[in-house]
Amino acid sequence: MRTRLTVAVVLFEEFELLDVFGPLEMFGSLPEQFDIVLTAEKGEAVTSSQGPKSVIDYRFENCPAFDILLVPGGPGTRREVDNPVLLAWLQSRAQVAQFVTSVCTGSALLARAGLLDGRRATTNKAAFEWVVSLSETVNWQKQARWVEDEHVFTSSGVSAGIDMSLALIARLSGEETAEQVATSAEYERHRDPSWDPFAVTCALL
Amino acid sequence: MRTRLTVAVVLFEEFELLDVFGPLEMFGSLPEQFDIVLTAEKGEAVTSSQGPKSVIDYRFENCPAFDILLVPGGPGTRREVDNPVLLAWLQSRAQVAQFVTSVCTGSALLARAGLLDGRRATTNKAAFEWVVSLSETVNWQKQARWVEDEHVFTSSGVSAGIDMSLALIARLSGEETAEQVATSAEYERHRDPSWDPFAVTCALL
Repeated sequence: MRTRLTVAVVLFEEFELLDVFGPLEMFGSLPEQFDIVLTAEKGEAVTSSQGPKSVIDYRFENCPAFDILLVPGGPGTRREVDNPVLLAWLQSRAQVAQFVTSVCTGSALLARAGLLDGRRATTNKAAFEWVVSLSETVNWQKQARWVEDEHVFTSSGVSAGIDMSLALIARLSGEETAEQVATSAEYERHRDPSWDPFAVTCALL
Repeated sequence: MRTRLTVAVVLFEEFELLDVFGPLEMFGSLPEQFDIVLTAEKGEAVTSSQGPKSVIDYRFENCPAFDILLVPGGPGTRREVDNPVLLAWLQSRAQVAQFVTSVCTGSALLARAGLLDGRRATTNKAAFEWVVSLSETVNWQKQARWVEDEHVFTSSGVSAGIDMSLALIARLSGEETAEQVATSAEYERHRDPSWDPFAVTCALL
């Protein structure tokens, strides 16, 4: 990889903890390659769906340029799909990002911002019907751990964001680096983006 | 499960992100059964090894009673094993906790506090030699995803904390509940505590 890349994570009230910190464990294990910034529309810290609060580095208006956009899911996405400030910020900043990524229902926000138009994408399997209902211009994939469509990576629910992040690290820094990151986190990685038993089991929850 | 239980997580500078937020994703998915509090010796927020900062709910001296103690690992444990304030707090509070748990090198802190004396325990496999050197009175297990010794649960590195937490949820709330939590996080759970390919591969990193 030629230069350091900055990963910017968008936070909002009731974001899903592991959607954010699974991927950041992976990118954050390569501090010589990736910088991390957390950004939100307002406030100083943002409360997750599970309770713990994360300190943001920047509000939207002050957030510096970044290379990789990461949008988590969580119950808060049900509200944020109707937040014009967040959607406009995603639209403008995604256009100049090298990669646009989402975990879980984060793809609902990308879809509503028009960033998945004409693209293949996936999302949380327990919330699949709701997300699909938000945009008919997206080619939604029901059976997928994650989906890569050019520079846009969308993942399935929660822990799938870890595998998606490792796939992006593999594309940027090579397969061997991705493998080392997974091993050092003692994480049994899924390398096949079509692996997805949850397409069936989550529908039964 | 008869009553609500409180999970208290000890934070310190350079804690490992996923050690904390993997388990909290699991416990936090059962808000009708578990409350979560984050506590630290000092400060208002604590910086992880990967950079993101978490807001604490209480300092040690004000931390209310809790049922489950969770001690994460991370590079900060190399410093905290010599922090008498933290070790004394662990000693006093672990005695009245229903369960004592650690992820990764968090077991180094439990060992130094004497809380693993005479018990079977495990830790991160890349840091195994260092942790073992801290206490000869612990029966360290090299090949283990996690170890249960009565009310003390220790896990291997980083992502192993998720499986350990699901095992504790299974003991407290039943196997079916643990399975539902894993499925809703689209997490491929390891149910066998002796599953541990990283006992070999981490030594090669």
